[in-house]
Amino acid sequence: MQVAAATGQKLDVLGIGNAIVDVLSHSDDELLTELGLEKGAMTLVDEERSEFLYRRMGPGREVSGGSCANTIAAIASMGGSGAYIGRVRDDALGRIFAHDIRAAGVRFDAAPQPDGPATARCLIFVTDDAQRTMQTYLGACVDLGPEDVDEELVRRAEVTYFEGYLYDKPAAKAACQKAADICHAAGNKLALTLSDSFCVERWRAELKELVEGRVDILFANESEIKSLYEVASFDEALQQVRRHVGFAALTRGAKGSVVVRGDEVHVIDAVPPARLVDTTGAGDLYAAGFLRGLTAGRDLATCGRLGSAAAAAIIGQYGARAAEPMTGLFAEMAG
Amino acid sequence: MQVAAATGQKLDVLGIGNAIVDVLSHSDDELLTELGLEKGAMTLVDEERSEFLYRRMGPGREVSGGSCANTIAAIASMGGSGAYIGRVRDDALGRIFAHDIRAAGVRFDAAPQPDGPATARCLIFVTDDAQRTMQTYLGACVDLGPEDVDEELVRRAEVTYFEGYLYDKPAAKAACQKAADICHAAGNKLALTLSDSFCVERWRAELKELVEGRVDILFANESEIKSLYEVASFDEALQQVRRHVGFAALTRGAKGSVVVRGDEVHVIDAVPPARLVDTTGAGDLYAAGFLRGLTAGRDLATCGRLGSAAAAAIIGQYGARAAEPMTGLFAEMAG
Repeated sequence: MQVAAATGQKLDVLGIGNAIVDVLSHSDDELLTELGLEKGAMTLVDEERSEFLYRRMGPGREVSGGSCANTIAAIASMGGSGAYIGRVRDDALGRIFAHDIRAAGVRFDAAPQPDGPATARCLIFVTDDAQRTMQTYLGACVDLGPEDVDEELVRRAEVTYFEGYLYDKPAAKAACQKAADICHAAGNKLALTLSDSFCVERWRAELKELVEGRVDILFANESEIKSLYEVASFDEALQQVRRHVGFAALTRGAKGSVVVRGDEVHVIDAVPPARLVDTTGAGDLYAAGFLRGLTAGRDLATCGRLGSAAAAAIIGQYGARAAEPMTGLFAEMAG
Repeated sequence: MQVAAATGQKLDVLGIGNAIVDVLSHSDDELLTELGLEKGAMTLVDEERSEFLYRRMGPGREVSGGSCANTIAAIASMGGSGAYIGRVRDDALGRIFAHDIRAAGVRFDAAPQPDGPATARCLIFVTDDAQRTMQTYLGACVDLGPEDVDEELVRRAEVTYFEGYLYDKPAAKAACQKAADICHAAGNKLALTLSDSFCVERWRAELKELVEGRVDILFANESEIKSLYEVASFDEALQQVRRHVGFAALTRGAKGSVVVRGDEVHVIDAVPPARLVDTTGAGDLYAAGFLRGLTAGRDLATCGRLGSAAAAAIIGQYGARAAEPMTGLFAEMAG
């Protein structure tokens, strides 16, 4: 177990997100069809629907999750310093979440909520093609609000990183805006992941305003960025990004990624995974590798390659948290 | 999700054991030394010690466990019919345990306890050599007693299988003895795993009496059977087994297994695993493959090979429950 970043020390990345425990289970396509699940997407469900789906799900394995939390845990696992803001209940899943992120070396100060909805869980149906279909009950996450944003942490963090998913709740959105204000006032960088193309559809106008007006570093996959700009091809989306966004890392699965910053454009190959088991967390880990490189002062191409390598490492196992420390990865590629 | 064995249908194997959720985490040897943990062993701990160790443990992943439960879940996953008797609390880990074993297709009728100790957990420190060091807090398991033994299930089951670990609690031991009486009165077979060499040391005299007097099919690994007979070599143990036990399957890790029944002796090779990640559950899955073959009427050599193949499949992943159904394995090797 590593030691979490203490007060006053350098803090590479602060994350703000939905604190979730994943329940992963193998599934066949027939079950997805029968349950009416949108393959590859993240869908929000209420507690009753979550219980219903869990009863229909096969045997599971529980691994801490939450897109942004996965990223921060991986940054710490690669030797960077991270802190995380998110809400859990004082229940068994909440204890698991808090244990896992702290044990990864991340500072996580939030006191678990003594009452209210249970800790969030995401039921993940993993099919033979390694795709994941996610059904999220947000539970305790819905109470995340501006009061959870620790100003001192935001001021200290070189990058404050949050997830588009937070726009699904008004109080969480307000928390993002508060963090953005503090971050920029302190001269730090604000980073965002668009999270999911359906999330982009739900909040397109607001997310576009955020991306073009306030975000310093944008992470998006191909379907998310095409959804944001309502275009049919990746290249059209890329041209929009170059026109309207200063700095973006766009991921394309097996096709690799494209990193743009002003006039710089890098086309980075994917790292072929040793095994393809479960793509849960591929995007989260790409962002982790990228931000680990960036906050260590590496050039953009190296950051992109670190992202690709971290993504490849995670899709060879179930879940989005590395079963073993990833310290070697940064040293090998960018040490 | 498969359909659990309904009343009146054929039941291959009924298991009785400690119902446990495993918390698996990667560890280095230094941490084991620092915490004073006996590498490779299962140690019983109280709740306070369990909490202390959890705080020192790295990020984890939760997978249902319990030696006997792993075996029964795997039998069902390979297309056999199974039922399980064990105790859980009505807490989050208890719900996970009950979900996972039922979703594997196992009949599990026990109502979760509304009060008393929490659902059992086993902290498993997995080292780079894929060995596992287990620290078990028994929690709700300690209340397992004769009243939990469903007579009708025991009468229906071709094999009733339980774990030596149950001898750690007097009421659980009484449950074993009750099950043994019913099993034999109905003309069925009684099977036992010795569980762990330290468990054998704790209860050697009683386990020897049980093994030689009442058990029809014995499962043990090399260190357990050597401990039972207090001999230094595997061959000495084998000669004792041939003299005193009617039917035994003795596992030896990478050296394979030896199956004896009366004058029959088979020396079975291990199946080299595609990957070596975590040996948790190797013995449990060997018993599963073996019993699946036996209750399907296969010859002993085939049963042994099924055991080896099931063990090889599980040590390529974290935890002792297969992430994907194992239906193909039986069909391929013994269909």
